[in-house]
Amino acid sequence: MERLTQQLQFIMEVDKLKGVLRQTQLLGVDRRENSAEHSWHVVLAAVILAEYANQTVDVLQVVKMLLIHDVVEIDAGDTFMYLETADAEQTQREQQAADRLFALLPQAQAVEFRALWDEFEARKTPEARYAKALDRLMPMLHNYHTQGFAWRKHQVPAERVYQRNVYMADGSNQLWDYAKNMINLAIERGYLQA
Amino acid sequence: MERLTQQLQFIMEVDKLKGVLRQTQLLGVDRRENSAEHSWHVVLAAVILAEYANQTVDVLQVVKMLLIHDVVEIDAGDTFMYLETADAEQTQREQQAADRLFALLPQAQAVEFRALWDEFEARKTPEARYAKALDRLMPMLHNYHTQGFAWRKHQVPAERVYQRNVYMADGSNQLWDYAKNMINLAIERGYLQA
Repeated sequence: MERLTQQLQFIMEVDKLKGVLRQTQLLGVDRRENSAEHSWHVVLAAVILAEYANQTVDVLQVVKMLLIHDVVEIDAGDTFMYLETADAEQTQREQQAADRLFALLPQAQAVEFRALWDEFEARKTPEARYAKALDRLMPMLHNYHTQGFAWRKHQVPAERVYQRNVYMADGSNQLWDYAKNMINLAIERGYLQA
Repeated sequence: MERLTQQLQFIMEVDKLKGVLRQTQLLGVDRRENSAEHSWHVVLAAVILAEYANQTVDVLQVVKMLLIHDVVEIDAGDTFMYLETADAEQTQREQQAADRLFALLPQAQAVEFRALWDEFEARKTPEARYAKALDRLMPMLHNYHTQGFAWRKHQVPAERVYQRNVYMADGSNQLWDYAKNMINLAIERGYLQA
Protein backbone atom coordinates (compact mmCIF):
# COMPACT_ATOMS: atom_id res chain seq x y z
CA MET A 1 0.00 0.00 0.00
CA GLU A 2 2.94 2.36 0.49
CA ARG A 3 3.59 2.73 -3.23
CA LEU A 4 -0.08 3.39 -3.95
CA THR A 5 -0.28 5.92 -1.12
CA GLN A 6 2.67 7.77 -2.63
CA GLN A 7 1.05 7.82 -6.08
CA LEU A 8 -2.21 9.11 -4.61
CA GLN A 9 -0.35 11.87 -2.78
CA PHE A 10 0.88 13.15 -6.14
CA ILE A 11 -2.61 12.82 -7.61
CA MET A 12 -4.15 14.80 -4.73
CA GLU A 13 -1.39 17.42 -4.80
CA VAL A 14 -2.00 18.28 -8.45
CA ASP A 15 -5.68 18.96 -7.63
CA LYS A 16 -4.35 22.50 -7.06
CA LEU A 17 -4.01 22.97 -10.83
CA LYS A 18 -7.78 23.54 -10.83
CA GLY A 19 -7.11 26.79 -8.99
CA VAL A 20 -4.60 28.22 -11.49
CA LEU A 21 -6.32 30.71 -13.80
CA ARG A 22 -5.27 31.41 -17.38
CA GLN A 23 -6.06 34.48 -19.51
CA THR A 24 -8.31 32.43 -21.78
CA GLN A 25 -12.02 33.24 -21.61
CA LEU A 26 -14.36 30.24 -21.88
CA LEU A 27 -17.01 29.95 -24.59
CA GLY A 28 -20.17 28.90 -22.80
CA VAL A 29 -19.32 30.03 -19.26
CA ASP A 30 -18.56 33.64 -18.31
CA ARG A 31 -15.20 33.21 -16.59
CA ARG A 32 -11.55 32.52 -17.25
CA GLU A 33 -10.26 29.02 -17.87
CA ASN A 34 -8.20 27.14 -15.31
CA SER A 35 -5.19 25.05 -16.21
CA ALA A 36 -6.75 21.71 -15.26
CA GLU A 37 -9.73 22.04 -17.57
CA HIS A 38 -7.41 23.41 -20.28
CA SER A 39 -5.31 20.26 -19.83
CA TRP A 40 -8.36 18.04 -20.40
CA HIS A 41 -9.34 20.01 -23.48
CA VAL A 42 -5.89 19.98 -25.08
CA VAL A 43 -5.45 16.22 -24.47
CA LEU A 44 -8.83 15.52 -26.09
CA ALA A 45 -7.95 17.76 -29.05
CA ALA A 46 -4.57 16.08 -29.43
CA VAL A 47 -6.22 12.65 -29.65
CA ILE A 48 -8.83 13.80 -32.17
CA LEU A 49 -6.39 15.71 -34.38
CA ALA A 50 -3.42 13.31 -34.32
CA GLU A 51 -3.74 12.72 -38.07
CA TYR A 52 -2.45 16.28 -38.67
CA ALA A 53 0.92 15.80 -36.96
CA ASN A 54 3.79 16.33 -39.43
CA GLN A 55 5.32 13.01 -38.40
CA THR A 56 3.53 9.94 -37.05
CA VAL A 57 3.41 10.33 -33.27
CA ASP A 58 3.01 7.96 -30.34
CA VAL A 59 -0.35 9.31 -29.19
CA LEU A 60 -0.08 7.91 -25.64
CA GLN A 61 3.25 9.70 -25.26
CA VAL A 62 1.60 12.95 -26.42
CA VAL A 63 -1.27 12.37 -23.99
CA LYS A 64 1.07 11.84 -21.02
CA MET A 65 3.05 14.94 -21.88
CA LEU A 66 -0.03 17.14 -22.14
CA LEU A 67 -1.59 15.72 -18.97
CA ILE A 68 1.32 17.06 -16.91
CA HIS A 69 2.62 19.94 -19.08
CA ASP A 70 1.14 22.62 -16.82
CA VAL A 71 1.44 21.13 -13.32
CA VAL A 72 4.51 23.29 -12.58
CA GLU A 73 2.12 26.25 -12.56
CA ILE A 74 0.93 25.04 -9.16
CA ASP A 75 4.11 26.58 -7.72
CA ALA A 76 5.23 28.88 -10.52
CA GLY A 77 1.92 30.35 -11.75
CA ASP A 78 0.69 30.75 -15.32
CA THR A 79 2.60 33.02 -17.70
CA PHE A 80 0.46 34.81 -20.29
CA MET A 81 2.25 34.02 -23.52
CA TYR A 82 1.70 37.43 -25.10
CA LEU A 83 2.59 39.65 -22.17
CA GLU A 84 5.72 38.25 -20.66
CA THR A 85 8.81 36.68 -22.06
CA ALA A 86 10.05 33.64 -20.18
CA ASP A 87 12.71 35.21 -18.04
CA ALA A 88 15.43 33.27 -16.24
CA GLU A 89 13.66 33.62 -12.90
CA GLN A 90 10.40 32.13 -14.18
CA THR A 91 12.30 29.28 -15.82
CA GLN A 92 14.02 28.59 -12.51
CA ARG A 93 10.70 28.64 -10.62
CA GLU A 94 9.30 26.09 -13.08
CA GLN A 95 12.34 23.86 -12.78
CA GLN A 96 12.03 23.93 -8.99
CA ALA A 97 8.33 23.14 -9.25
CA ALA A 98 9.10 20.16 -11.49
CA ASP A 99 11.75 19.00 -9.00
CA ARG A 100 9.27 19.15 -6.13
CA LEU A 101 6.14 17.79 -7.79
CA PHE A 102 7.39 14.81 -9.77
CA ALA A 103 9.52 13.70 -6.82
CA LEU A 104 6.25 12.93 -4.99
CA LEU A 105 5.86 9.88 -7.24
CA PRO A 106 7.68 6.54 -6.75
CA GLN A 107 11.14 6.80 -8.28
CA ALA A 108 10.68 5.19 -11.71
CA GLN A 109 7.48 7.17 -12.34
CA ALA A 110 9.09 10.36 -11.04
CA VAL A 111 11.86 9.93 -13.59
CA GLU A 112 9.39 9.09 -16.38
CA PHE A 113 7.16 12.10 -15.80
CA ARG A 114 10.04 14.52 -15.27
CA ALA A 115 11.50 13.30 -18.56
CA LEU A 116 8.14 13.85 -20.27
CA TRP A 117 7.98 17.41 -18.96
CA ASP A 118 11.57 18.09 -20.08
CA GLU A 119 10.78 16.57 -23.49
CA PHE A 120 7.74 18.84 -23.89
CA GLU A 121 9.72 21.94 -22.94
CA ALA A 122 12.62 21.05 -25.27
CA ARG A 123 10.32 20.65 -28.34
CA LYS A 124 12.74 18.34 -30.12
CA THR A 125 10.79 15.09 -30.61
CA PRO A 126 7.82 14.75 -33.01
CA GLU A 127 5.60 14.10 -29.95
CA ALA A 128 6.72 17.26 -28.16
CA ARG A 129 6.40 19.39 -31.31
CA TYR A 130 2.89 18.14 -31.96
CA ALA A 131 1.91 18.55 -28.29
CA LYS A 132 3.23 22.13 -28.28
CA ALA A 133 1.32 22.91 -31.48
CA LEU A 134 -1.91 21.82 -29.79
CA ASP A 135 -1.08 23.81 -26.66
CA ARG A 136 -0.86 26.90 -28.90
CA LEU A 137 -3.90 26.10 -31.01
CA MET A 138 -6.31 25.86 -28.07
CA PRO A 139 -6.05 29.46 -26.78
CA MET A 140 -6.18 30.73 -30.38
CA LEU A 141 -9.47 28.90 -30.85
CA HIS A 142 -10.83 30.33 -27.62
CA ASN A 143 -9.70 33.84 -28.51
CA TYR A 144 -11.18 33.62 -31.97
CA HIS A 145 -14.51 32.24 -30.76
CA THR A 146 -14.82 34.92 -28.03
CA GLN A 147 -14.29 37.71 -30.57
CA GLY A 148 -10.69 38.12 -29.44
CA PHE A 149 -11.47 38.47 -25.72
CA ALA A 150 -7.93 38.08 -24.28
CA TRP A 151 -6.27 39.63 -27.35
CA ARG A 152 -8.38 42.77 -27.01
CA LYS A 153 -8.10 42.92 -23.22
CA HIS A 154 -4.32 42.92 -23.44
CA GLN A 155 -4.14 44.80 -26.79
CA VAL A 156 -2.11 42.07 -28.46
CA PRO A 157 -1.29 43.00 -32.07
CA ALA A 158 -1.71 40.44 -34.87
CA GLU A 159 2.01 40.44 -35.59
CA ARG A 160 2.70 39.22 -32.06
CA VAL A 161 0.07 36.46 -32.33
CA TYR A 162 1.76 35.38 -35.53
CA GLN A 163 5.28 35.45 -34.05
CA ARG A 164 4.42 33.61 -30.87
CA ASN A 165 2.56 30.84 -32.68
CA VAL A 166 4.59 30.28 -35.83
CA TYR A 167 6.39 27.27 -34.32
CA MET A 168 3.07 25.39 -34.49
CA ALA A 169 4.29 24.57 -38.00
CA ASP A 170 7.08 22.41 -36.50
CA GLY A 171 4.41 20.10 -35.11
CA SER A 172 1.71 20.45 -37.74
CA ASN A 173 1.80 22.41 -40.97
CA GLN A 174 -1.89 21.81 -41.50
CA LEU A 175 -2.91 23.16 -38.08
CA TRP A 176 -0.67 26.18 -38.59
CA ASP A 177 -2.32 26.85 -41.96
CA TYR A 178 -5.67 26.76 -40.22
CA ALA A 179 -4.37 29.07 -37.49
CA LYS A 180 -2.98 31.59 -39.99
CA ASN A 181 -6.37 31.69 -41.64
CA MET A 182 -7.94 32.36 -38.22
CA ILE A 183 -5.52 35.23 -37.61
CA ASN A 184 -6.49 36.78 -40.96
CA LEU A 185 -10.18 36.41 -40.28
CA ALA A 186 -9.67 37.84 -36.78
CA ILE A 187 -8.06 40.95 -38.30
CA GLU A 188 -10.88 41.28 -40.85
CA ARG A 189 -13.50 41.02 -38.13
CA GLY A 190 -11.78 43.42 -35.78
CA TYR A 191 -10.87 40.86 -33.11
CA LEU A 192 -7.17 41.59 -33.66
CA GLN A 193 -5.35 44.79 -34.56
CA ALA A 194 -3.33 44.44 -37.77
CA MET B 1 -10.12 22.03 -44.36
CA GLU B 2 -13.72 20.85 -44.11
CA ARG B 3 -12.84 17.75 -42.10
CA LEU B 4 -10.68 19.77 -39.70
CA THR B 5 -13.41 22.39 -39.30
CA GLN B 6 -15.85 19.64 -38.36
CA GLN B 7 -13.44 18.20 -35.78
CA LEU B 8 -12.86 21.65 -34.28
CA GLN B 9 -16.62 22.21 -34.03
CA PHE B 10 -16.85 19.16 -31.78
CA ILE B 11 -13.84 20.33 -29.76
CA MET B 12 -15.37 23.79 -29.24
CA GLU B 13 -18.81 22.34 -28.43
CA VAL B 14 -17.47 20.22 -25.57
CA ASP B 15 -15.98 23.37 -24.00
CA LYS B 16 -19.38 23.50 -22.28
CA LEU B 17 -18.34 20.59 -20.03
CA LYS B 18 -16.36 23.19 -18.03
CA GLY B 19 -19.68 24.63 -16.93
CA VAL B 20 -21.18 21.38 -15.59
CA LEU B 21 -20.79 21.24 -11.80
CA ARG B 22 -20.42 18.05 -9.79
CA GLN B 23 -21.08 17.53 -6.07
CA THR B 24 -17.37 17.01 -5.39
CA GLN B 25 -15.67 19.73 -3.36
CA LEU B 26 -12.11 20.59 -4.44
CA LEU B 27 -9.15 20.31 -2.09
CA GLY B 28 -7.20 23.54 -2.50
CA VAL B 29 -9.96 25.74 -3.95
CA ASP B 30 -13.20 26.53 -2.15
CA ARG B 31 -15.73 25.50 -4.77
CA ARG B 32 -17.29 22.48 -6.45
CA GLU B 33 -15.51 20.59 -9.20
CA ASN B 34 -16.62 20.79 -12.82
CA SER B 35 -16.75 17.79 -15.11
CA ALA B 36 -13.96 18.96 -17.44
CA GLU B 37 -11.36 19.30 -14.69
CA HIS B 38 -12.59 16.02 -13.18
CA SER B 39 -12.01 14.42 -16.61
CA TRP B 40 -8.40 15.65 -16.65
CA HIS B 41 -7.82 14.39 -13.13
CA VAL B 42 -9.28 10.93 -13.72
CA VAL B 43 -7.32 10.46 -16.97
CA LEU B 44 -4.09 11.40 -15.20
CA ALA B 45 -4.87 9.03 -12.33
CA ALA B 46 -5.72 6.22 -14.75
CA VAL B 47 -2.33 6.60 -16.45
CA ILE B 48 -0.41 6.68 -13.17
CA LEU B 49 -2.30 3.76 -11.58
CA ALA B 50 -2.56 1.45 -14.62
CA GLU B 51 -0.43 -1.19 -12.87
CA TYR B 52 -3.34 -1.88 -10.48
CA ALA B 53 -5.83 -2.96 -13.16
CA ASN B 54 -6.95 -6.57 -12.64
CA GLN B 55 -6.12 -7.37 -16.24
CA THR B 56 -3.56 -5.72 -18.48
CA VAL B 57 -5.30 -2.82 -20.19
CA ASP B 58 -4.68 -0.80 -23.34
CA VAL B 59 -3.95 2.50 -21.59
CA LEU B 60 -4.67 4.67 -24.64
CA GLN B 61 -8.09 3.04 -24.92
CA VAL B 62 -8.74 3.83 -21.23
CA VAL B 63 -7.57 7.41 -21.79
CA LYS B 64 -9.90 7.94 -24.76
CA MET B 65 -12.84 6.50 -22.85
CA LEU B 66 -12.28 8.73 -19.83
CA LEU B 67 -11.68 11.84 -21.92
CA ILE B 68 -15.23 11.65 -23.27
CA HIS B 69 -17.05 9.68 -20.54
CA ASP B 70 -18.83 12.75 -19.18
CA VAL B 71 -19.51 14.86 -22.30
CA VAL B 72 -23.14 13.73 -22.39
CA GLU B 73 -23.61 15.82 -19.23
CA ILE B 74 -23.48 18.90 -21.48
CA ASP B 75 -27.08 18.09 -22.45
CA ALA B 76 -28.15 15.69 -19.70
CA GLY B 77 -26.55 17.23 -16.60
CA ASP B 78 -24.55 15.51 -13.86
CA THR B 79 -26.23 12.89 -11.70
CA PHE B 80 -25.04 12.72 -8.09
CA MET B 81 -24.29 9.04 -7.67
CA TYR B 82 -25.56 8.83 -4.09
CA LEU B 83 -28.80 10.75 -4.45
CA GLU B 84 -30.44 9.52 -7.57
CA THR B 85 -30.72 6.19 -9.22
CA ALA B 86 -30.27 6.22 -12.97
CA ASP B 87 -33.87 6.29 -14.12
CA ALA B 88 -35.01 5.47 -17.64
CA GLU B 89 -35.55 9.14 -18.44
CA GLN B 90 -32.00 10.12 -17.49
CA THR B 91 -30.60 7.20 -19.48
CA GLN B 92 -32.59 8.36 -22.49
CA ARG B 93 -31.34 11.94 -22.10
CA GLU B 94 -27.77 10.66 -22.05
CA GLN B 95 -28.31 8.49 -25.11
CA GLN B 96 -29.74 11.47 -26.98
CA ALA B 97 -26.80 13.61 -25.89
CA ALA B 98 -24.39 10.96 -27.17
CA ASP B 99 -26.30 10.85 -30.46
CA ARG B 100 -26.05 14.60 -30.89
CA LEU B 101 -22.50 15.23 -29.68
CA PHE B 102 -20.49 12.46 -31.30
CA ALA B 103 -22.31 13.03 -34.60
CA LEU B 104 -20.52 16.39 -34.80
CA LEU B 105 -17.32 14.50 -35.63
CA PRO B 106 -16.44 13.11 -39.09
CA GLN B 107 -18.13 9.74 -39.51
CA ALA B 108 -15.36 7.27 -38.65
CA GLN B 109 -14.42 9.26 -35.52
CA ALA B 110 -18.08 9.68 -34.58
CA VAL B 111 -18.46 5.90 -34.66
CA GLU B 112 -15.20 5.37 -32.74
CA PHE B 113 -16.05 7.77 -29.91
CA ARG B 114 -19.66 6.66 -29.64
CA ALA B 115 -18.41 3.06 -29.35
CA LEU B 116 -15.96 4.14 -26.62
CA TRP B 117 -18.76 5.79 -24.67
CA ASP B 118 -20.99 2.71 -25.05
CA GLU B 119 -18.08 0.49 -23.99
CA PHE B 120 -17.54 2.59 -20.87
CA GLU B 121 -21.20 2.48 -19.92
CA ALA B 122 -21.46 -1.28 -20.52
CA ARG B 123 -18.48 -2.06 -18.20
CA LYS B 124 -17.72 -5.34 -19.92
CA THR B 125 -14.16 -4.97 -21.23
CA PRO B 126 -11.09 -4.80 -18.94
CA GLU B 127 -10.53 -1.22 -20.13
CA ALA B 128 -14.06 -0.12 -19.27
CA ARG B 129 -13.97 -1.85 -15.88
CA TYR B 130 -10.69 -0.21 -14.99
CA ALA B 131 -11.86 3.19 -16.26
CA LYS B 132 -15.07 2.91 -14.20
CA ALA B 133 -13.07 1.97 -11.11
CA LEU B 134 -11.03 5.15 -11.47
CA ASP B 135 -14.15 7.22 -12.05
CA ARG B 136 -15.41 5.97 -8.69
CA LEU B 137 -12.11 6.29 -6.86
CA MET B 138 -11.67 10.01 -7.62
CA PRO B 139 -14.76 11.37 -5.80
CA MET B 140 -14.02 9.04 -2.86
CA LEU B 141 -10.55 10.56 -2.57
CA HIS B 142 -12.00 14.07 -2.72
CA ASN B 143 -14.66 13.26 -0.16
CA TYR B 144 -12.16 11.66 2.18
CA HIS B 145 -9.67 14.53 1.90
CA THR B 146 -12.36 17.16 2.50
CA GLN B 147 -13.51 15.43 5.71
CA GLY B 148 -16.48 13.94 3.90
CA PHE B 149 -17.77 17.24 2.45
CA ALA B 150 -20.30 15.89 -0.07
CA TRP B 151 -21.10 12.80 2.04
CA ARG B 152 -22.01 14.97 5.02
CA LYS B 153 -23.84 17.59 2.97
CA HIS B 154 -26.12 14.91 1.51
CA GLN B 155 -26.08 12.67 4.63
CA VAL B 156 -24.85 9.65 2.70
CA PRO B 157 -24.49 6.62 4.99
CA ALA B 158 -21.37 4.42 4.82
CA GLU B 159 -23.40 1.43 3.64
CA ARG B 160 -24.48 3.35 0.56
CA VAL B 161 -20.92 4.44 -0.21
CA TYR B 162 -19.92 0.80 0.03
CA GLN B 163 -22.78 -0.44 -2.18
CA ARG B 164 -22.35 2.15 -4.91
CA ASN B 165 -18.60 1.61 -5.18
CA VAL B 166 -18.19 -2.12 -4.72
CA TYR B 167 -17.95 -2.73 -8.48
CA MET B 168 -14.56 -0.97 -8.39
CA ALA B 169 -13.33 -4.47 -7.59
CA ASP B 170 -14.25 -5.59 -11.14
CA GLY B 171 -11.63 -3.20 -12.46
CA SER B 172 -9.08 -3.27 -9.67
CA ASN B 173 -9.10 -5.36 -6.51
CA GLN B 174 -6.18 -3.39 -5.13
CA LEU B 175 -7.85 -0.01 -5.59
CA TRP B 176 -11.04 -1.36 -4.05
CA ASP B 177 -9.05 -2.63 -1.04
CA TYR B 178 -7.62 0.85 -0.65
CA ALA B 179 -11.10 2.38 -0.99
CA LYS B 180 -12.59 0.05 1.64
CA ASN B 181 -9.87 1.09 4.01
CA MET B 182 -10.75 4.74 3.30
CA ILE B 183 -14.42 4.06 4.07
CA ASN B 184 -13.45 2.51 7.40
CA LEU B 185 -11.17 5.41 8.30
CA ALA B 186 -13.90 7.86 7.25
CA ILE B 187 -16.32 6.20 9.68
CA GLU B 188 -13.72 6.25 12.48
CA ARG B 189 -13.04 9.93 11.91
CA GLY B 190 -16.70 10.90 11.67
CA TYR B 191 -16.69 11.84 7.96
CA LEU B 192 -19.24 9.12 7.27
CA GLN B 193 -22.15 7.77 9.33
CA ALA B 194 -21.80 4.04 9.98
